[in-house]
Amino acid sequence: MSQKTRINSALSACIARAQGHGRKDVPTKLAQTLSYATTPGGARIRPTILVSVALACGDDQPHLTDAAATALELMHCASLVHDDLPCFDDADTRRGKPSVHKAFSEPLAVLAGDSLIMLAFDELARAAHAAPDRGLALIRTLSDRSGMPGGICAGQGWESEAVIDLHAYHCSKTAGLFVAATQMGAIAAGNDPEPWAELGLRIGEAFQVADDLRDALFDEGALGKPVGQDDRHGRPNAVSELGARGAMSRLNDILGGAIASIPSCPGEAKLAHLVRAQADAIVPRTVATAFK
Amino acid sequence: MSQKTRINSALSACIARAQGHGRKDVPTKLAQTLSYATTPGGARIRPTILVSVALACGDDQPHLTDAAATALELMHCASLVHDDLPCFDDADTRRGKPSVHKAFSEPLAVLAGDSLIMLAFDELARAAHAAPDRGLALIRTLSDRSGMPGGICAGQGWESEAVIDLHAYHCSKTAGLFVAATQMGAIAAGNDPEPWAELGLRIGEAFQVADDLRDALFDEGALGKPVGQDDRHGRPNAVSELGARGAMSRLNDILGGAIASIPSCPGEAKLAHLVRAQADAIVPRTVATAFK
Repeated sequence: MSQKTRINSALSACIARAQGHGRKDVPTKLAQTLSYATTPGGARIRPTILVSVALACGDDQPHLTDAAATALELMHCASLVHDDLPCFDDADTRRGKPSVHKAFSEPLAVLAGDSLIMLAFDELARAAHAAPDRGLALIRTLSDRSGMPGGICAGQGWESEAVIDLHAYHCSKTAGLFVAATQMGAIAAGNDPEPWAELGLRIGEAFQVADDLRDALFDEGALGKPVGQDDRHGRPNAVSELGARGAMSRLNDILGGAIASIPSCPGEAKLAHLVRAQADAIVPRTVATAFK
Repeated sequence: MSQKTRINSALSACIARAQGHGRKDVPTKLAQTLSYATTPGGARIRPTILVSVALACGDDQPHLTDAAATALELMHCASLVHDDLPCFDDADTRRGKPSVHKAFSEPLAVLAGDSLIMLAFDELARAAHAAPDRGLALIRTLSDRSGMPGGICAGQGWESEAVIDLHAYHCSKTAGLFVAATQMGAIAAGNDPEPWAELGLRIGEAFQVADDLRDALFDEGALGKPVGQDDRHGRPNAVSELGARGAMSRLNDILGGAIASIPSCPGEAKLAHLVRAQADAIVPRTVATAFK
């Protein structure tokens, strides 16, 4: 079974449970939003990193790893549903289909996000019976990287401040769930999460630079015409700072650092290979080729 | 220390932690929403019930009981913040002051609710180290009664359906966090939660009838002129069904049943007294006197 199949299968079992497995005494539309908001899955990058770290550490409690991957993806999907709301990004589409509030309604989008957050913790608590201490550590790590004062909610909260602390903003909003991914993978397999934080932070940083590259090079449909396009919040951007070639080079440095930070573990080499493969996936091949 | 002081003190310690204890790298406004949304406390009825049940069961892990009471109140406050949003009740005020989205902004209100939900689970996971199995059971009970398919989110979700299953609606939306209160009190003190569900359900039912009475008798400023005022969603209402006197009598029957349902435990008599006292608190004295 591929990692993606493993992740999607655990996730869809969890969603079916939250939908009441076809029970009649469940509000149908809200139940529908839960699968709508979590499919199609895109690359499932965060849970893939989580499972890869768990495998590198031995994955001796695969059921707990599955629950951790599911919980992390639920939290990510919840954040997308709420970020798309009219009061934030007011996004009409997401992953090539109408956003949840467009397809259903704004009340149902708020409730869908809330329900997915609750379901994430529920999934971890249910899977934890065989290893309660790991389960509790997983719950704490997920809440740390999601809520206040330093998780993705805090990151989003910075956008309401007159002056943004850019370091705190990136650590929380951009890197938060990547750090959760590496640390939760380690915890699920019974390892100390601390040494795994740096890998998550660096992957988060790499994603930020890759996003900047995509913004600058693709959104204007002008590959090869890398005008330094400041993002709409007026925040610094790797491409406007360094140019496209400089940003590609920065990205490669970050990835090198990410791979160097991988703690010693049985599956270290395989994990390094995977980080490199994920990096290739996030930077469109055409860009990578143009700026090699 | 009174129960209310105990609850408020645990809650404010938890909020201070989520605000980063004065750290500079925290988004200030979102941090402020967390205390704004949780104070002043009103009666703190749900956590009071929780602590009372725990005390009746021996309260041998008071730190865990405090965390459970805090988590439950956080979840309740989160639901109020989101329910007040323009897309739901569009409420300008709450507990005598501007609602969170009015005082801050709609994005900050969405994030405040999200953060409080995450904090509830975080608080439980942190307190659980001394009794991991109880901690995990608390987390599962809170998520069951909050999320899908049968918690307060599901209850709110019913309001987006063309046809409402009234039994499911009341069990989830009205009684959900009362059942969580009695069951979490039992779990925190190491008792089986199952026998405690009925007490929570009946207290929830009593609150519904008391709400109907207040709606009919007070919102029109016409005590003693109990016009059967259908609620604005056109749902059945105890006063319009039974008249005010009939609804008072129904309320007393429910409370009798609630007290009769209290499982045998060391503090049974004291708990019965407390349920009666809470009931007196929820029905304004003038109403109770008028319809005795």
